[in-house]
Amino acid sequence: MPTAFFLNGPNANMYGLDAKGVYGTESFPAIRQRCLRAAARAGLALDFRQTNDEGEMVDWIQEARQAADGLLINGASLSYRSIAVLDALLMLECPVLEVHMSNIHRREAFRDKTMLSLAATGSICGLGPLGYELAVGAMAEMIAVGRTR
Amino acid sequence: MPTAFFLNGPNANMYGLDAKGVYGTESFPAIRQRCLRAAARAGLALDFRQTNDEGEMVDWIQEARQAADGLLINGASLSYRSIAVLDALLMLECPVLEVHMSNIHRREAFRDKTMLSLAATGSICGLGPLGYELAVGAMAEMIAVGRTR
Amino acid sequence: MPTAFFLNGPNANMYGLDAKGVYGTESFPAIRQRCLRAAARAGLALDFRQTNDEGEMVDWIQEARQAADGLLINGASLSYRSIAVLDALLMLECPVLEVHMSNIHRREAFRDKTMLSLAATGSICGLGPLGYELAVGAMAEMIAVGRTR
Amino acid sequence: MPTAFFLNGPNANMYGLDAKGVYGTESFPAIRQRCLRAAARAGLALDFRQTNDEGEMVDWIQEARQAADGLLINGASLSYRSIAVLDALLMLECPVLEVHMSNIHRREAFRDKTMLSLAATGSICGLGPLGYELAVGAMAEMIAVGRTR
Amino acid sequence: MPTAFFLNGPNANMYGLDAKGVYGTESFPAIRQRCLRAAARAGLALDFRQTNDEGEMVDWIQEARQAADGLLINGASLSYRSIAVLDALLMLECPVLEVHMSNIHRREAFRDKTMLSLAATGSICGLGPLGYELAVGAMAEMIAVGRTR
Amino acid sequence: MPTAFFLNGPNANMYGLDAKGVYGTESFPAIRQRCLRAAARAGLALDFRQTNDEGEMVDWIQEARQAADGLLINGASLSYRSIAVLDALLMLECPVLEVHMSNIHRREAFRDKTMLSLAATGSICGLGPLGYELAVGAMAEMIAVGRTR
Amino acid sequence: MPTAFFLNGPNANMYGLDAKGVYGTESFPAIRQRCLRAAARAGLALDFRQTNDEGEMVDWIQEARQAADGLLINGASLSYRSIAVLDALLMLECPVLEVHMSNIHRREAFRDKTMLSLAATGSICGLGPLGYELAVGAMAEMIAVGRTR
Amino acid sequence: MPTAFFLNGPNANMYGLDAKGVYGTESFPAIRQRCLRAAARAGLALDFRQTNDEGEMVDWIQEARQAADGLLINGASLSYRSIAVLDALLMLECPVLEVHMSNIHRREAFRDKTMLSLAATGSICGLGPLGYELAVGAMAEMIAVGRTR
Amino acid sequence: MPTAFFLNGPNANMYGLDAKGVYGTESFPAIRQRCLRAAARAGLALDFRQTNDEGEMVDWIQEARQAADGLLINGASLSYRSIAVLDALLMLECPVLEVHMSNIHRREAFRDKTMLSLAATGSICGLGPLGYELAVGAMAEMIAVGRTR
Amino acid sequence: MPTAFFLNGPNANMYGLDAKGVYGTESFPAIRQRCLRAAARAGLALDFRQTNDEGEMVDWIQEARQAADGLLINGASLSYRSIAVLDALLMLECPVLEVHMSNIHRREAFRDKTMLSLAATGSICGLGPLGYELAVGAMAEMIAVGRTR
Amino acid sequence: MPTAFFLNGPNANMYGLDAKGVYGTESFPAIRQRCLRAAARAGLALDFRQTNDEGEMVDWIQEARQAADGLLINGASLSYRSIAVLDALLMLECPVLEVHMSNIHRREAFRDKTMLSLAATGSICGLGPLGYELAVGAMAEMIAVGRTR
Amino acid sequence: MPTAFFLNGPNANMYGLDAKGVYGTESFPAIRQRCLRAAARAGLALDFRQTNDEGEMVDWIQEARQAADGLLINGASLSYRSIAVLDALLMLECPVLEVHMSNIHRREAFRDKTMLSLAATGSICGLGPLGYELAVGAMAEMIAVGRTR
Repeated sequence: MPTAFFLNGPNANMYGLDAKGVYGTESFPAIRQRCLRAAARAGLALDFRQTNDEGEMVDWIQEARQAADGLLINGASLSYRSIAVLDALLMLECPVLEVHMSNIHRREAFRDKTMLSLAATGSICGLGPLGYELAVGAMAEMIAVGRTR
Repeated sequence: MPTAFFLNGPNANMYGLDAKGVYGTESFPAIRQRCLRAAARAGLALDFRQTNDEGEMVDWIQEARQAADGLLINGASLSYRSIAVLDALLMLECPVLEVHMSNIHRREAFRDKTMLSLAATGSICGLGPLGYELAVGAMAEMIAVGRTR
Repeated sequence: MPTAFFLNGPNANMYGLDAKGVYGTESFPAIRQRCLRAAARAGLALDFRQTNDEGEMVDWIQEARQAADGLLINGASLSYRSIAVLDALLMLECPVLEVHMSNIHRREAFRDKTMLSLAATGSICGLGPLGYELAVGAMAEMIAVGRTR
Repeated sequence: MPTAFFLNGPNANMYGLDAKGVYGTESFPAIRQRCLRAAARAGLALDFRQTNDEGEMVDWIQEARQAADGLLINGASLSYRSIAVLDALLMLECPVLEVHMSNIHRREAFRDKTMLSLAATGSICGLGPLGYELAVGAMAEMIAVGRTR
Repeated sequence: MPTAFFLNGPNANMYGLDAKGVYGTESFPAIRQRCLRAAARAGLALDFRQTNDEGEMVDWIQEARQAADGLLINGASLSYRSIAVLDALLMLECPVLEVHMSNIHRREAFRDKTMLSLAATGSICGLGPLGYELAVGAMAEMIAVGRTR
Repeated sequence: MPTAFFLNGPNANMYGLDAKGVYGTESFPAIRQRCLRAAARAGLALDFRQTNDEGEMVDWIQEARQAADGLLINGASLSYRSIAVLDALLMLECPVLEVHMSNIHRREAFRDKTMLSLAATGSICGLGPLGYELAVGAMAEMIAVGRTR
Repeated sequence: MPTAFFLNGPNANMYGLDAKGVYGTESFPAIRQRCLRAAARAGLALDFRQTNDEGEMVDWIQEARQAADGLLINGASLSYRSIAVLDALLMLECPVLEVHMSNIHRREAFRDKTMLSLAATGSICGLGPLGYELAVGAMAEMIAVGRTR
Repeated sequence: MPTAFFLNGPNANMYGLDAKGVYGTESFPAIRQRCLRAAARAGLALDFRQTNDEGEMVDWIQEARQAADGLLINGASLSYRSIAVLDALLMLECPVLEVHMSNIHRREAFRDKTMLSLAATGSICGLGPLGYELAVGAMAEMIAVGRTR
Repeated sequence: MPTAFFLNGPNANMYGLDAKGVYGTESFPAIRQRCLRAAARAGLALDFRQTNDEGEMVDWIQEARQAADGLLINGASLSYRSIAVLDALLMLECPVLEVHMSNIHRREAFRDKTMLSLAATGSICGLGPLGYELAVGAMAEMIAVGRTR
Repeated sequence: MPTAFFLNGPNANMYGLDAKGVYGTESFPAIRQRCLRAAARAGLALDFRQTNDEGEMVDWIQEARQAADGLLINGASLSYRSIAVLDALLMLECPVLEVHMSNIHRREAFRDKTMLSLAATGSICGLGPLGYELAVGAMAEMIAVGRTR
Repeated sequence: MPTAFFLNGPNANMYGLDAKGVYGTESFPAIRQRCLRAAARAGLALDFRQTNDEGEMVDWIQEARQAADGLLINGASLSYRSIAVLDALLMLECPVLEVHMSNIHRREAFRDKTMLSLAATGSICGLGPLGYELAVGAMAEMIAVGRTR
Repeated sequence: MPTAFFLNGPNANMYGLDAKGVYGTESFPAIRQRCLRAAARAGLALDFRQTNDEGEMVDWIQEARQAADGLLINGASLSYRSIAVLDALLMLECPVLEVHMSNIHRREAFRDKTMLSLAATGSICGLGPLGYELAVGAMAEMIAVGRTR
């Protein structure tokens, strides 16, 4: 069974807790469960993680070079400026899918452009937890057809 | 049965014909068939159109105010600078999903930012014909849960 | 009796229909009637048109070279970037009056500056339908005193 | 009878005196008379003033909070950069109409954008003394219908 | 006999009519005749067209993929910002020659840079009707030597 | 007893009067009283003034060279662009403390950066009337320890 | 007794050690003592920490959501570009006070603007250790009056 | 005997008083005497003034239209941004000479470009009091040969 | 017989020698011969030169004021930034034709805009040695019809 | 024997593993050995480390204040934007040498400028593992002659 | 007798020859005579030169380190961008006076800012040949009082 | 024995002569000797030259195509803006090493980015004469291993 990593960046663990924010009310554990179910349906082993630390995110992506057939990433605040995460992604050969809960293009100017998109096969944004779920299914299909980064 | 429009902008009719381009080898009629099948599976009536003309695109979006429950759009070259298309989209109340065949963020600088994203619920890009198909399914789900623009 | 064209750009036909927008509740046909009445009072034959198509707008302005003594234009989304409309206006010799329903300088940055102003005698903005009416009267007076572009 | 202030900024007192300039040949006192006549016709008490001093302009706008039902302003050189005048205008609740003799968008780049437009209901520019007269009539109508800033 | 399209954009049909403009006094039909004569001399079938409409321009360029061995284009106002026209040109394999009547680099800043140059083999500008004629001859020679875009 | 000037710029006299603004409901005279009490507690003679006029502000700062041991300033709209006020401050040797009622970094872009900060020892912003009071106490302490600009 | 966190970013632990720098000669432990004394005087429990690690800073701010009634932060180098720290602060509801030892507006251009200010109630900068002490007192007062972020 | 105005802007009255500044040690009254002597030698009546107030500066320049045959101006801080002073100067017909004590091009970026230069015949900068003296002599000569602005 | 100069800038003498470059395989002497033949056909005396030195290029253009009826120039690297060459060209009265081997608008950003175009009648670029030849013929025709710069 | 630290940033541990990258085929451990040998030859104790974590990098540089006589750093992705690393380096007194495997000035724009260069004595880039080796030798010499940062 | 160099850059030798230009009708040799006379009056040996070549200009400035007590320079086109000339000037210790015939601040944008001003004591511009003459006198005085660069 | 050119640009011949500059006290002839000795040690024939003239620098680089196996260059002021020198370097196939005496990234903004780096294999900067010496050794090694540009 193919394996994918789904890596989440800083503050993603707070989804659903901040009533005044833009991330809706579904909690992070619930989103995780939603993804694991979608992966099971698609025949994909999913390793779903979160960190507030850029260094740990880089470690995990380096780990994915050996351990994963595809990588899903919601870089959160690391998406916009982390060259370290970008460089780690650029060294991958498997497909990389960038996911964002909110439509980052309708928020502050500093969220309008991600560095990670320079290393991503594609992206899904603005669809909330539904986007997470779609991404897992799409990744299974991309691995199946042998898509590269 | 709910209805969605899937509107395609200039030169989308040429997908699959330009061997040196970035849009792959699947022809536009084949992509259309793929979308119609996905719509049928999701219980969605899909009105799939293409135009090279900005004015006609605006006419169609105005038409969608009455005739559609959701709007999918690959604005192609109109995506980046057409305020006319943006303004027409801003007047909609139904969900709007922006789709791009290629990862527009890894191409020329003038494709990096779309105006249409300012009126979109979300977007899917870089996944080729698979992205078209995913978008149709996601739209069916967004209509079902009553998501607005 | 002198003649003026009043040309309206994309989506102007939707004024009054979009409750969440900035254009108020007076419908486009009602604004048209208001302008025709003002023209009649001022002894001006008014040809009032709307199009979503840049090419048609250019055709009409070229037509005005022979057929009109003055030109009023609410370029709407064409105002900001259409060099084609600008070039057509630059070839006129009669007075040109730019009109905007909303105060375009208090909205998104991309509406702050119009290209058409480079070819306009003057402009009226932010006064809603009242601005349309004022513009018709002002045009009658400018034609009467022989003002050029 | 409702009252409006018409405040003119630096060097407006020189209109008509500078043959090589862009402001035409009608003198400032003549423009003032034109406005007073228009106000009389429209049933509006008009307080028409001019100053070369930013501080005095701010004082007058603060005075208008109590003393005026509408404010017309040709900020002249203060229009482009005076945050002090802008801040004073932002504290008003009555309608504010910005007027410019010349079409400021066809002159030097530093005149292309006014700060005052951020606090104005609308603006009229490029119509010379006719624009002054139109503005007075428009203000009477805006006060009559209860328009706010 | 090889065939070339010579496509002209918005307002090119007005050349020679605007005494105060920069395009000289030779009329558009006269320029067309000049080009047809040059083509005849060079053994080239020339299809010479003009449109004010971006959508029609895109249609014609798509048509050229099958029907023409070379494409000459004076995009006029479409030259500077039309990604739709650029994208259509990018799909061609035959030589593309950009022509401008005036020296666009000595006019307004927004005419200084064309998008179409990104898809052109080369360009000729500032030589008026002579430049049109030179371009036809050059295209015949480029087709003869098998030059691609 | 050491003396400090507390100079307030344009429109500061309106604090508390504009219900829709960002400056809260405490009136300017009340803020003045609050500062005088704080000064008394700290053993500081406080000269608290306000002007709408840049020239008068410059005069006062020049006066402070002889008459004051410290200078507190809420430049208001003069903060952002007045080189005259900046130059006057640069000639002082005593400590200079910049105070702003609101958090100027969360408002319009043109308020994000002050020129006066180039001549200030430090600044306090966003704390409303409490910030005024803190500043008075801090100034007393800075004078006591002989801090220079 | 209410509780506040005082979080210090990278290299703050070196204050007082770098003779050629701009941070003065008071050591970091001494500043900490000064703050603890001020907190005791104000009836505030103060949790004073320092880290060189952005991830740890984010963890601490997330912890503050439950554990603190107010947050003081000298983000040091994280202040200028860390969206991760900004996002964590944006999720707080309690007052947030930004503190800087030096006047960051008189140093290198990249220190002139902080991202954290977008989430701060207010800020104090340039006052050295005195600013730390003032901030603690101000926070006690803000908590007492129920000020939110 | 021809007459010239020599107008000095904000803070010029402080020259020579600020030991740490860039303006040297010669006092403003001494510079004034130096200029009066130079004028006497050159047969020029010199009206030498200073103000901290932009409005008064504008009044004086308007006065010069009738009263002076030439105008010397050290706009000081008004040089860089005052459109009011620029507009007043633009209405003059006599020669205008801009003078600066210091070399403004080797100081802060905001002093590098003056608005006043747009209305000046020429400028002298960086030569200190000597530059003042040279300017008076040059003005006498420009008036003698009938030079205009 | 009329005379034209054809001046070539730095490194043009290397055309055809650099296999990995963009200038093709025709050598510079061969291009020179091609131009001389074209000049002979057109009845034009052609003085064809090359230099790596900006000063020598300026000398030659100054020489052309007396010695030439038209000037062709491939400024090469001097095209983009040399104000000295621009100033020399601006002093000419005869027609000036700018030529570039490659399409400079599809290369590095610093080659996209030439300073020389500000002094050129027109330009031909991207057509390789054919463009050189066309330019010679065009110059002969421009001289014949009395075209000026 | 003098001691130097050689600190490597994120993803440097992957050198030699990414065939499609720009870093060549020599592995990171091999580069480390090369440096240790060079240090031995030069009589330098070398402490060679790598981390993916910005916080750890800052800790190590702080440690170097006591433990090292010189610091070599390949900041990798931290080079371009890390103010935390810059601030730590600025507190050093020993020589600091910046090293990059690739010529960062011929890659993406965001790698063109390093923040670390603001604190470096000098830099070596683009020479691959040879550059590492040269740097070690140069550091030994700089320590020997007592060079400071 | 003290000595000064007066160095003139490219195309200065053409002053007076170009009727349509901005440099007036006085020839370069006449300006030279004017300067030599002024130098004689002031007791200054003047070495007056002109070159079109940047390298020669640098040589001359290096020569001035030994041979001159002051340097006057009209860099002409070299003024705006030549770092070589700037660097040579920066190595001088004697006073440096920059002179321009025209008011460079009222011409094209690329002439608005000179690099040479970074190395000049002061500048005189816009006064034509009179400015040359004034500069010679001023230099004599600066040398007399021992002014340095 | 392999041969390398070491080419030095404008004002490099002044190293060591300008006490107030940043280039230290070692004279240019001494640096040359240092390099010749290093070349001898490394078995490299070194041709060490200096010029103030851009044209001569281009000539020399063209000469190096035949005569040298490697090229070292300190372009000095030509480094930052000379496209002529860049173009000449781009035509080389041998390794190119850029050397700067000072750390150009800690000086004026216009020295921060070199054009030459676009054609260089690598660079060494900020190490003074030691950097020159290191570069010679590195070049010998690059030639030995067959490194290309």
